[in-house]
Amino acid sequence: MSPRLPVGPAVELGPGDDAALVTVQGGRVIATTDVLVEGRHFRRDWSGPYDIGRKAAAQNLADVVAMGGRPTALLIGFAGPADTPVGWAEAFADGLRDECELVEAGVAGGDTVSAPLLVLSVTALGELLGERPLTRSGARPGDVVAVRGRLGWASAGLELLLRGVFEPVELIYAHRRPQPPYEAGMEALKAGATALLDVSDGLVQDLGHIARASDVRIDLSAAAVRALAPEVPDRLRHALTGGEDHAFAATFPPEAVPGAGWAVVGRVTDGAGVVVDGRPYEGHGWDHFLTE
Amino acid sequence: MSPRLPVGPAVELGPGDDAALVTVQGGRVIATTDVLVEGRHFRRDWSGPYDIGRKAAAQNLADVVAMGGRPTALLIGFAGPADTPVGWAEAFADGLRDECELVEAGVAGGDTVSAPLLVLSVTALGELLGERPLTRSGARPGDVVAVRGRLGWASAGLELLLRGVFEPVELIYAHRRPQPPYEAGMEALKAGATALLDVSDGLVQDLGHIARASDVRIDLSAAAVRALAPEVPDRLRHALTGGEDHAFAATFPPEAVPGAGWAVVGRVTDGAGVVVDGRPYEGHGWDHFLTE
Repeated sequence: MSPRLPVGPAVELGPGDDAALVTVQGGRVIATTDVLVEGRHFRRDWSGPYDIGRKAAAQNLADVVAMGGRPTALLIGFAGPADTPVGWAEAFADGLRDECELVEAGVAGGDTVSAPLLVLSVTALGELLGERPLTRSGARPGDVVAVRGRLGWASAGLELLLRGVFEPVELIYAHRRPQPPYEAGMEALKAGATALLDVSDGLVQDLGHIARASDVRIDLSAAAVRALAPEVPDRLRHALTGGEDHAFAATFPPEAVPGAGWAVVGRVTDGAGVVVDGRPYEGHGWDHFLTE
Repeated sequence: MSPRLPVGPAVELGPGDDAALVTVQGGRVIATTDVLVEGRHFRRDWSGPYDIGRKAAAQNLADVVAMGGRPTALLIGFAGPADTPVGWAEAFADGLRDECELVEAGVAGGDTVSAPLLVLSVTALGELLGERPLTRSGARPGDVVAVRGRLGWASAGLELLLRGVFEPVELIYAHRRPQPPYEAGMEALKAGATALLDVSDGLVQDLGHIARASDVRIDLSAAAVRALAPEVPDRLRHALTGGEDHAFAATFPPEAVPGAGWAVVGRVTDGAGVVVDGRPYEGHGWDHFLTE
């Protein structure tokens, strides 16, 4: 599928040699890898190859952005049945390409092997936008918590699919193809964010990482969180525990929250853990779809 | 398994955030990815987890070396059954660790997911040892072809396993755990190699990549190639077509071949393709073990 894939401005040597060579500014490369397994992270009867390509790229590109970085290149491992239609792989590559083009990243290399089921591994590389990465450990009591993007949309869409319902299409599409607001990384950096991550496993679970790494407590406002979720039954649960929308959550000094697109959903205090309106939230975290 | 894994001197931020941060000298990062599928690239009844870890690391570290690079970090995707014993994953991690330590690389990150069978994806990062990469396109007529490492050992070992024979152990071990001579990259670079690659799919097939990329013909000496293979039936076939030993093959100006460890096995001429003693070789290339 490599002829269909963009190489990207940072890829000095792409597919075809023992390894790729990717330009890196600043002396440090950001690197992250994810594995997507058929039946667990995607279902071919629910998502087409193009959308799976977009999603596979998006979730890794979002991880680079969540470090305060600019994605430059992907490496793709494609394990699948020998009888996977060529058209399937081509549409998957088209999805990768179109998602990469949103951030001007390229596909630097990959490996295609035979396997009884589809397993996709995606590694994303990138470079820092600033001098330092935006990690999970910099939140301080007094900061506010803000979110850029949607919460609970993909989760609500998945719940519909599991019930055999295929509309509203906005929610089905949200499950098939996340739309991370990639500009969030630069916005958070410029505004002076103290911590940043992408919400992939649910807001409560992911902010728990910031709370632990920063040794703080995070107190969310249910009303503010609910406003980012679709108008469906149980929307607070979707917003607090749904994964795969790849919104970005950050902490900022109160005066520093960027304007457009960022919604303040909570505050950072002394203590530990994540609470909602002051109380522990008992819902479950995101675990993709359990087929086992 | 991450507590068991070495972070390595180049890994500034390891597992635990959205992505890792790896130091890169020279403004360019080498990157390569491979996928290993249970039943195709390894069998759990033939190879233990420790050896599978060493092999998974080795084949990717060798790809970085084959670019004229120094490996710095791995990212590991681990997809496997939920009931995979903890001890299995730990021994796999130990194998990764010990292979990484040979080159002072670390494990920068990874992803662990559930899947019906074991699928391992390994991405290796590295930095260039010299100003430029050692690609496959620099061979020139008049150069000689030299090999550093063993040929056909892993292939002969696999053939024994397929026949239910478990000795000689040197050959069985060669299948289970390649031993790439990692110093070959620096040696080839210092000596002025014009092209370099690691032999993963069989000497004829891999040198075919150099022949095509460099627009030259490569003429191998059967006697010289045979000398690098174990003393087993059909040793020339194993040496010419066997994969997975991860020897390194390079082209050098005739006066530049490094001494110890490098065996001259052929020469570069005008023309196209790879021939053995002047004639096309009709054997098959390496295709792991076909279980489908």
